[in-house]
Amino acid sequence: MPRRVITLTTDFGTCDHFAGTMKGVILSIQPAAEIVDMTHEVCPFEIPDGAFTIAQAYRFFPKRTIHVVVVDPGVGSTRRPILAEMAGHYFIAPDNGVLSMIFSREAAKVRHITNDRYFLKPLSRTFHGRDVFAAVAAHLAAGVPPARFGPRIDDYIRLTLDQPARNGKSSWTGSVLKVDRFGNIITNLHIEEFPQVKTRPFELRVSSQPIKRLALTFTDCEPGELFALVGSSGYIEVATNQGSAVQALGCSAGSPVELTIF
Amino acid sequence: MPRRVITLTTDFGTCDHFAGTMKGVILSIQPAAEIVDMTHEVCPFEIPDGAFTIAQAYRFFPKRTIHVVVVDPGVGSTRRPILAEMAGHYFIAPDNGVLSMIFSREAAKVRHITNDRYFLKPLSRTFHGRDVFAAVAAHLAAGVPPARFGPRIDDYIRLTLDQPARNGKSSWTGSVLKVDRFGNIITNLHIEEFPQVKTRPFELRVSSQPIKRLALTFTDCEPGELFALVGSSGYIEVATNQGSAVQALGCSAGSPVELTIF
Amino acid sequence: MPRRVITLTTDFGTCDHFAGTMKGVILSIQPAAEIVDMTHEVCPFEIPDGAFTIAQAYRFFPKRTIHVVVVDPGVGSTRRPILAEMAGHYFIAPDNGVLSMIFSREAAKVRHITNDRYFLKPLSRTFHGRDVFAAVAAHLAAGVPPARFGPRIDDYIRLTLDQPARNGKSSWTGSVLKVDRFGNIITNLHIEEFPQVKTRPFELRVSSQPIKRLALTFTDCEPGELFALVGSSGYIEVATNQGSAVQALGCSAGSPVELTIF
Repeated sequence: MPRRVITLTTDFGTCDHFAGTMKGVILSIQPAAEIVDMTHEVCPFEIPDGAFTIAQAYRFFPKRTIHVVVVDPGVGSTRRPILAEMAGHYFIAPDNGVLSMIFSREAAKVRHITNDRYFLKPLSRTFHGRDVFAAVAAHLAAGVPPARFGPRIDDYIRLTLDQPARNGKSSWTGSVLKVDRFGNIITNLHIEEFPQVKTRPFELRVSSQPIKRLALTFTDCEPGELFALVGSSGYIEVATNQGSAVQALGCSAGSPVELTIF
Repeated sequence: MPRRVITLTTDFGTCDHFAGTMKGVILSIQPAAEIVDMTHEVCPFEIPDGAFTIAQAYRFFPKRTIHVVVVDPGVGSTRRPILAEMAGHYFIAPDNGVLSMIFSREAAKVRHITNDRYFLKPLSRTFHGRDVFAAVAAHLAAGVPPARFGPRIDDYIRLTLDQPARNGKSSWTGSVLKVDRFGNIITNLHIEEFPQVKTRPFELRVSSQPIKRLALTFTDCEPGELFALVGSSGYIEVATNQGSAVQALGCSAGSPVELTIF
Repeated sequence: MPRRVITLTTDFGTCDHFAGTMKGVILSIQPAAEIVDMTHEVCPFEIPDGAFTIAQAYRFFPKRTIHVVVVDPGVGSTRRPILAEMAGHYFIAPDNGVLSMIFSREAAKVRHITNDRYFLKPLSRTFHGRDVFAAVAAHLAAGVPPARFGPRIDDYIRLTLDQPARNGKSSWTGSVLKVDRFGNIITNLHIEEFPQVKTRPFELRVSSQPIKRLALTFTDCEPGELFALVGSSGYIEVATNQGSAVQALGCSAGSPVELTIF
C-alpha cells in the first residue's frame, strides 16, 4: 500500500522552526506519512496567493492526498478550521476562503473540524498550523474517517478570485493573480473563458501598457518584447523572453488588467 | 518498523548544493532514513539562532529522531563534533553551544565523536556537515550504537541564552531571541518564569517603546497596535495584528528588553 | 529493496507551486519514489549555475539515483530533452549544457527523450519540468528501461565551464563559478590541476585584489583577512573568516580571476 501523501502550503517561510515543527507533529502521529513541501512562501496573510498556489497544484497529486493549507491571519479567533473533500483529495485549512479557487471548480463536501481529541494539547492560540492542522492531517492519514472530525457545513467562505468583470460587449476587467518567480504576470483571465484571443486581434492592458501579441512559447519573441502567453495552468500571462515582465510593468497581485477583443 | 527520522537544521541556505549533498550522504549510508528539513536558513554563523530553532522544534518529533544541527563557524578547527542524547532524542552538532537551550532543559548524555571510521574520506576541512555530521547521523540511523562514536564528555559548551538578569525587586533585563518571519519579536522571557504578566500590570520596553497590554491572540487588537503575547513556545513576544512589530520597533536578535512588573 | 531516489535541481524557486507540482506528478506515477530537493534556487536561466550545483552533489547520492535538472530558458523551443547515464547515475535535463561539468568528468550514454507516451497530456509549452522531466523521471523510477525513452545521441551540448586558459608559462585566466551562501568565491581552478599552489608562492587576483595565502581552514586567518582555500569540492576558493569575501571584492559568477605561480 503506498504511503499517504500530505502536502504543506503555508505562509510560514523557511527561516523559522514552524514548517519543521509541523512535520514533527505529523510524523509523531503517523510515521508512515509522506510529507511534501508545496511551498512555505505564500505571501504572509495573503489568502488569494495561497488560494492560487494550492489550486494550481493539487490535481497533479495522487487521489487521497491530504493538502494542508495554512494562511491564517485569523488564528486564535473564531474562524473555523475545515476539512473539505473535493475531486478525491482532502483539504485541511482555515475557513477564510483559501480554498476558494478549488471550491469554484469542484463539488465539495465540507466539515467544520470541531473534535478536539485530534488537536495537540495544550492548544496554543497562535500556532494552529502545529496544534490543529498538522495534527488533524496526520490523524486523517492514519485512517480516522472524515466524519469523526466534525459536522458537515455549507456556509463555508467562498471568495471570488478568478472571475473578471464584463465592462461591455467585448471588454473585461480582470486582475493579476500572482507574479511568479520569473516575473511573469499571471492574470485571472483563463483561456477557456477567452478562447477568442487565440484567433482574433485583442488588446490586454497592464499598467497602461497595451499587449497585442499572443506567443506560443517564451522563445518565440525577442528578448525584451512583452507578450501574452497561455500559461501552464491555462491563465493568460504577460511575459518576456528570459526577462522579467513585472520589472518592465510594475504591477502586483490584485492589480487590474483590461482585456478588449476586437 | 517506522523509518528512522533525521532532521536537518543548518545555516547552509538553499541556494547551494550543501543541503542536497548532505541528503545524498545520508541516503547512501542508510537508504531507509526519513530526512526532514527543519530549516537551512539559520542566520549564517549565528549559534543563538540555531540554538533557538532546534530547541523549539525537537520535542514535536517522534522519540529516537536524530537531529543534525550544523551552525559551525569553527569548522576545520579543533572544536569537537558531539552526539548528545536528551529526552529520548539524538542530537549531532559541533560543540559550540548550539544545543544550549536543550541542555538547559533536559538531562544530557554527551559524547565526543572521535571514531573516524564513520566519517567520509577524504575528510574535508570546510564541509563537516557532509563529511562528519551527515555521515554520523546516517550510521546512527542504521543502528550503530552511540557508544561506538566516541567517549562520554562532561565539559561540552553551554551558553546562557534564555536567562534574563534581575535588576531589582520587580524588574528584569532580557533580550530578543529571534524575530520571526512575520516580524514578531520573541524575547527570552518565558511565561513559566513570569506568570505575573497574566494577572498584574506590567511594562515591557523594547527599543524604548513601552508595551503594557497582554493579548490572547493576534486578532484581539487593532491593526497597528503593539502588544505582548505568549507565543506558541511559551516565550513572551511583541506583536501587532497582521503587521510587523519589528518594522515598528527596529530591534534584532540580541537586543535588550526591559520588563517591570508593578 | 530501497526506494528509488529522485533529486530535483531547478531554477523554479520555492515561492510558486512549480516544485510542489513536479513532486505531485512524480508521486502520481511512482508513489514509492523518494524525492529529494537539491535546490530550486539556481539563478533563473543560469545554465552554468545549475551545471555547477548538480556536478558538486550527484556523486554523494546512491547509485541509480535519478537527478532531474531543470534550468530551461529554451522551454517550448526545439531544444531536446535528454536522459544521460553517467557513473551509475541517471540525469534528466534539457540539452542545453546544464550537465556539462559531469560530461567533462564521466563517460556518458545519452538519449534524446522522444517517446511522448511518457509525457503528461496535454503537453504545455512552458512547464516541461512538470509535463516532461518529472514525468519521465517517475517512469524511469518505476522501472521503464532507458532505451524506451528515445534513441542514443552523441551531439548533445557540452559547454566549457571549468577550464581556465593558459596565458603564459606560469599564469592562467580562470573565472568565478559561483558565489556561495557565505560569500565564498568559488573559482574554476581545481586543486588537482594546480597542486603547486600548495607548495609554491602564488598570486591569485580577483577584482584586482591579490591573494597570496593558502589557508587550510577558515579559522586559520584573522577575521577580515582574505585568503585562498581548497573548498570541499576541490576548487580553489577565496574566503574570509566568518565574513563575506564577495562583499569585500564585488565579483560574481563569470568574473575573471588571474593565477600566477612563481
